Amino acid sequence: MRPRPHRPPRPARGGHQSVWLYGRHAVLAALANPERRLERLLLTREMAERHAAELAAARASAKPEILSREELAQRLPAGAVHQGIAALVAPLEEPQLEDVLARCGEHALVLALDQVTDPHNVGAVLRSAAAFGVAGLIVTERHAPADTGVLAKAASGALELVPLVRAVNLARALDQLKAAGFWLYGLDERGEVGIGDLDLAGRACIVLGAEGEGLRRLTVEKCDRLVTIPTEAKLAALNVSNAAAVAAYEWARRRKKC
Amino acid sequence: MRPRPHRPPRPARGGHQSVWLYGRHAVLAALANPERRLERLLLTREMAERHAAELAAARASAKPEILSREELAQRLPAGAVHQGIAALVAPLEEPQLEDVLARCGEHALVLALDQVTDPHNVGAVLRSAAAFGVAGLIVTERHAPADTGVLAKAASGALELVPLVRAVNLARALDQLKAAGFWLYGLDERGEVGIGDLDLAGRACIVLGAEGEGLRRLTVEKCDRLVTIPTEAKLAALNVSNAAAVAAYEWARRRKKC
Repeated sequence: MRPRPHRPPRPARGGHQSVWLYGRHAVLAALANPERRLERLLLTREMAERHAAELAAARASAKPEILSREELAQRLPAGAVHQGIAALVAPLEEPQLEDVLARCGEHALVLALDQVTDPHNVGAVLRSAAAFGVAGLIVTERHAPADTGVLAKAASGALELVPLVRAVNLARALDQLKAAGFWLYGLDERGEVGIGDLDLAGRACIVLGAEGEGLRRLTVEKCDRLVTIPTEAKLAALNVSNAAAVAAYEWARRRKKC
Repeated sequence: MRPRPHRPPRPARGGHQSVWLYGRHAVLAALANPERRLERLLLTREMAERHAAELAAARASAKPEILSREELAQRLPAGAVHQGIAALVAPLEEPQLEDVLARCGEHALVLALDQVTDPHNVGAVLRSAAAFGVAGLIVTERHAPADTGVLAKAASGALELVPLVRAVNLARALDQLKAAGFWLYGLDERGEVGIGDLDLAGRACIVLGAEGEGLRRLTVEKCDRLVTIPTEAKLAALNVSNAAAVAAYEWARRRKKC
């Protein structure tokens, strides 16, 4: 057994700087998350009426401020698709990998991203992870986006549901997973076995690389197997979030049949 | 049998207005596509050296213009991730649905999007369609993005590979598919059967709706069955491009086992 040191919770990335979340799903999920500390809540009258029930629950921590769509847009980054609702929130306490692993059952899937930097992609992976019951998503601390509004919007609420672990050293995190009984599968076009032909029972971690770069050499060395999603030869690679969705779907499909 | 009228090819959307494609995969795929008429080709010296072979083939139609990354960025829409290469091209001739269907074999998958407007999403669906051997993608002519650079970039070359049919009337297009022997499956959270439990043999069309809106009533009425991708109840919906990737993967996986 791997020793599990008692570490104090790490302060969230970038100190405790607050962040704007926007968009209906992202904000309503934050309101429903007891771990999320709300500082301000801005919304249009229409949204306030439509979501009166959800707001009632959150009213204790932040009084809703009613304003127009235009006023709202002015307070957010340019181009933010806010759908009439935004919240200023404290970042979530960063989950520790050992705590995520401790909560995993006999059958569990963890996803890991090796230096994927686009917040749309990371957010979309988080969303698929929530949809298919993935236990956690590991990203590299460097070369990965902070959990900003863009990521939260793409995650459509999943940032509140799926632990997002930032690993200082991905190779060491993969060692931790291995010690906890996880099989490590690197998704890579060089893979010798299709994901549909894999035995995904037990504890599994699927690692995906950045588009273009793929998995780093050290990451490949840590993996027990390299696997592929079989595609037409003329266009080998799926978008990383689509690849993650397919991998998580395949795992969930098999688990149902266990 | 449905009569197949001989119609002259329709002029491309927006007349014959040229469009900027950018990004390595999008431009190299356009260079490799004999149907694509190239008007200008701009790239950095580094890209010119790295892709000398691909350029040699295209040199006949447009002389490469070498410039810096900054000069390139100035000629493109703000924020365009050009990766050092861009091309001004004539739009592709719009494929007709009857021609796409005529090329389909006994087993074929067509995807259809009901008023999906985000060009990133449509591009990503096109990319997954190419990856899994989908015969064509149908979008609604209104409430769908033009095949701009954003769409082409997200499609990562797939715009040159997968016929993108713009249907003036989606319901009528679905009737055409039905007459050509396609089973119509609407992907909808109200669906009574999981996509993994479906018999996807033969000719199939999977129809996906816009996020939030879902499938329109008339679209639902045209479908033979409503199907779902089974997900955890707490977060019902996948991003539309991830849902399309999973659906196309499931179809390709089964076909391999036919």
